[in-house]
Amino acid sequence: MTDSIRQTEQIAADIQAALETGRAQEAADAFTKLYPADQAEVFNALRDAQQDALLELLDIPSTADLFDELEDDEALEAAEGLSTERLADILDEMDPDEAADLLGDLPPRVAREALAQMEDPEDVLPLLEYPDETAGGRATTAYIAMRRHTTAEQAIQFLRDVAPENDVPYYLFVVDRNKQLIGVVGLRELVIASPDTTMEAIMDPDVISIPADADQEEAARVMQRYDLSALPVVDADKRLIGVITHDDILDVIEDEATEDIYRISQVSDADLDPDSDIRQQLRGRLPWLLFSSIASLFAAWVISNFGDLIAQVALLAFFQSVVAGLGGNSAGQSVAMVVRALALDKIDRRQAWKILLRQAMVGLLQGVMLGAIVGMGIGLWQQNPYLGLVISLSLMLNMLIGGIVGTLVPMILHALGKDPALASSVLVTAATDSLGFLIYLSLASAFLPLIQQYL
Amino acid sequence: MTDSIRQTEQIAADIQAALETGRAQEAADAFTKLYPADQAEVFNALRDAQQDALLELLDIPSTADLFDELEDDEALEAAEGLSTERLADILDEMDPDEAADLLGDLPPRVAREALAQMEDPEDVLPLLEYPDETAGGRATTAYIAMRRHTTAEQAIQFLRDVAPENDVPYYLFVVDRNKQLIGVVGLRELVIASPDTTMEAIMDPDVISIPADADQEEAARVMQRYDLSALPVVDADKRLIGVITHDDILDVIEDEATEDIYRISQVSDADLDPDSDIRQQLRGRLPWLLFSSIASLFAAWVISNFGDLIAQVALLAFFQSVVAGLGGNSAGQSVAMVVRALALDKIDRRQAWKILLRQAMVGLLQGVMLGAIVGMGIGLWQQNPYLGLVISLSLMLNMLIGGIVGTLVPMILHALGKDPALASSVLVTAATDSLGFLIYLSLASAFLPLIQQYL
Repeated sequence: MTDSIRQTEQIAADIQAALETGRAQEAADAFTKLYPADQAEVFNALRDAQQDALLELLDIPSTADLFDELEDDEALEAAEGLSTERLADILDEMDPDEAADLLGDLPPRVAREALAQMEDPEDVLPLLEYPDETAGGRATTAYIAMRRHTTAEQAIQFLRDVAPENDVPYYLFVVDRNKQLIGVVGLRELVIASPDTTMEAIMDPDVISIPADADQEEAARVMQRYDLSALPVVDADKRLIGVITHDDILDVIEDEATEDIYRISQVSDADLDPDSDIRQQLRGRLPWLLFSSIASLFAAWVISNFGDLIAQVALLAFFQSVVAGLGGNSAGQSVAMVVRALALDKIDRRQAWKILLRQAMVGLLQGVMLGAIVGMGIGLWQQNPYLGLVISLSLMLNMLIGGIVGTLVPMILHALGKDPALASSVLVTAATDSLGFLIYLSLASAFLPLIQQYL
Repeated sequence: MTDSIRQTEQIAADIQAALETGRAQEAADAFTKLYPADQAEVFNALRDAQQDALLELLDIPSTADLFDELEDDEALEAAEGLSTERLADILDEMDPDEAADLLGDLPPRVAREALAQMEDPEDVLPLLEYPDETAGGRATTAYIAMRRHTTAEQAIQFLRDVAPENDVPYYLFVVDRNKQLIGVVGLRELVIASPDTTMEAIMDPDVISIPADADQEEAARVMQRYDLSALPVVDADKRLIGVITHDDILDVIEDEATEDIYRISQVSDADLDPDSDIRQQLRGRLPWLLFSSIASLFAAWVISNFGDLIAQVALLAFFQSVVAGLGGNSAGQSVAMVVRALALDKIDRRQAWKILLRQAMVGLLQGVMLGAIVGMGIGLWQQNPYLGLVISLSLMLNMLIGGIVGTLVPMILHALGKDPALASSVLVTAATDSLGFLIYLSLASAFLPLIQQYL
């Protein structure tokens, strides 16, 4: 199976070669035999002109399947080369949620024209109201709804006649006359029910749903928590407007994780890839480095207050970064753990004190152990026991502070409704740098006569 | 709906109060009304003695549902208070994959005795062969398999009679006489088929499967790529041994993301929570700080070679960390983006050069811009244009190096089959620190006469 992933590069090369030597039909035939996910990967590896040549040879349903799989920006780019008429046909065949996303990304004039020419615009219209990253924006309208008095036999006949394809193939949603959701029937229950049983008799009335304007991350968390493969989405009047499926949620969870990893590393735009456009990368990266610059200038100012001390004993300047840097590393460990626990909703208020205490204790213990090792190492290297002692004590103190600040900052940001991943690393490093320099140079000042004995 | 998550804390308090005032049955009744995911949360909030009191009052199926939801270590702890007989009954009722995980975690003697007393040990025995984190370890045996000549009517009758509950409710897997997987039938196809159609006629023979010894992350990636809600797992002879379901895969993806976030922040054990046992935290955190210590002592040695320079112009020591630190931040941005792209399989070999070039370019441009701003700021602050110039130039060079090293190190680790998240941040920071100090102090040496003019 996973061979098929590895083979994709080879197939892409074959299709590319076929396109380059004028064997376009051969390329299109090979292309349509692939799984849609592989098609998307092969398609993205082609040059623009090759993409256009291939699109011309694909039929409408194949193109729609491909568009469903492409990332939003890739689909937009591919759509730009198409006539409005062809685009409208493709939109009709696409998954309604993907079609709605694409319509939202198109220039408004093009989107209006395409909508006007679509056969079934009513599938996508309700979804256009909700931004992409809400539950409503993630939902599909290609689900099956039944009324409570429908019998199992009628439902099965309906499945045979009317709904050969839909995105939520294993659930029937039961609604009342106002389209309000009142229950769900699994296909298993339908199969084993006797023909004249009504939906009401076999439905589970205790159905979990989510409001359309809820964040997609909340939808993901609910589906994960309750092991749901489909989550109905309702509007403010509790009317069913769509269903989110398990495959959407995988993407949400992966995007969310990328966001956390990026933000903890001072990259604020989760859509960036390492080969993204340079201007886009600078927009997502430079502002955070500016904040860090201010923090590092403040730390430099702290050191500048000890200018006379350093002029007297230049040796002290060799080790200031050891204290600041290791304190920052230890604090960063706390930040990562707290940010992740907050993202996964693992911390409730009662645990906050316990966590703070424990992180402070781990920081202190790490400071004691590393302080002993590093302090002794430097003491021996420089033949100066009091320098070693000052470094031990400052590491201990700075790591204790790192544990406290590294826990408190993300928790406070979270309590203020801010994303803890976004600012924590800048703020925490600012603290461990500045305080690290302050503690180390102050202690060195205090121990100066003793240190100088060994110079 | 999401109210129910918020209410959980209140319900936990109610149940706790009921247990404390001797109303144990009332507590158990309230408990069994909750969704299993909420039960697990409430259960974990109870004290050990309260947990034991509650477990005594739950019936076997309820206890099995609860155990299915608990984390592996929590289930193990809860199981320790039970008699072997009761434990065997619970294991019989649990999801086979969860039961296998628990058996694997129990002391070998207890596991052997429990297995011996189970009614259906054959459901879990095949799964015990595979480690937890493999596809085989994640799979459940509670799926439905059919032979190719079975008719739709027979299959539906089988569903009615024999298999009222299973973990993969919407697929029938078709196997030949050697138990080799030859196709899959969706319940939708079964429902709309005429009664005497055979499985062979309606099955999809092009079924995607994964070897049992494949890593669970590979299984997750396959399910995500092809939008599967169930993935059959086969042994070396292509025989079907189990099925992985979509809810397992959410956990895998989340664990994988936690691992990346932790490793990039120098925490090597992804099972750690901010309130984990202190010794466990030290084991997962301290070793990485030791590596960082060595790197920071090396950086201190680099500075020590410029001892005379610093003794002459102490001012230089104020700003060495600005150059090193900002270079490290910029490099860390590259590391995060490359590590994430590698984890999500987004980089193929042909793109490597493009990415390296682009990251180097972004690093250089960030260095030029920040160098201009920070260099000018320090130049004005210290009334020393040549000091500003030295800082500008060193920031530019160090960020260029950061872009290159921050891209190359994770890529090389990945090519060597190592996890790029694990060592990248230590190695890259070592480079930007040491080279940052070296560049800055060397340039300062070269410009010394000019800098001294303004002192």
